[in-house]
Amino acid sequence: MDRIPILKMGPFLLVTIQVDLYDRLALTLENDLISMVSQTGAKGVLIDISAVTIVDSFMGRILGNIASMSRIMDAETVVVGMQPAVAITLVELGLTLQGVYTALDVEKGMDLLYNKIGIIDVLEEDDQEEEPDDCND
Amino acid sequence: MDRIPILKMGPFLLVTIQVDLYDRLALTLENDLISMVSQTGAKGVLIDISAVTIVDSFMGRILGNIASMSRIMDAETVVVGMQPAVAITLVELGLTLQGVYTALDVEKGMDLLYNKIGIIDVLEEDDQEEEPDDCND
Repeated sequence: MDRIPILKMGPFLLVTIQVDLYDRLALTLENDLISMVSQTGAKGVLIDISAVTIVDSFMGRILGNIASMSRIMDAETVVVGMQPAVAITLVELGLTLQGVYTALDVEKGMDLLYNKIGIIDVLEEDDQEEEPDDCND
Repeated sequence: MDRIPILKMGPFLLVTIQVDLYDRLALTLENDLISMVSQTGAKGVLIDISAVTIVDSFMGRILGNIASMSRIMDAETVVVGMQPAVAITLVELGLTLQGVYTALDVEKGMDLLYNKIGIIDVLEEDDQEEEPDDCND
């Protein structure tokens, strides 16, 4: 497969990286993602890297690029499912993923985005009906 | 990467197939998926094959197997994002994906699952408040 599929889920786009990102594939992903953001008006981009076991500075830069591009297009980026070893490697490489939000899994990532963009997650709100904190001004 | 990641999204599991399914990978996916269904109590499985351009009888059988296994575990399976050429090939191969629901994209697939398992999609319901059809017995 010569391109990574981008799934639209409500106001967000979801990308699951399962293959090693080579130059051409990474550039295609960047282009496709930015086009999708402008086409769909997505407010957030979720990038799942739970299948990524080996990370290098190239991958780190691509993630940073996508986040920067998305922000210019008014969409926040959240990287989810990062494996501990990958996090260690990224820091050892000196890549702290500036401007990239991270979350443990897709669900937490979506909650983070919902909070960032100020959309109230209806399901979440439903669960928290009893909480008086909701009544604060 | 030697396994395909399975993402939990609310009551559903999402799998995006981006690589050719070889025997071992397919078996790993089947095992992982069934384990996840039993662990998470997921009520539905979404399999996105929008990146799949070439399909053979093996892939067709794997999709059928996953659907059958999931149903036994009380979870429905929806295959989403199938490309027209793939649909043509499947039928020409005589594979009509018995017992596998299909939808055009992930969002439509989720709506289908919400209807199948009788969960009312809160967001959907919100949009359809004016429709009197909702009042039918």
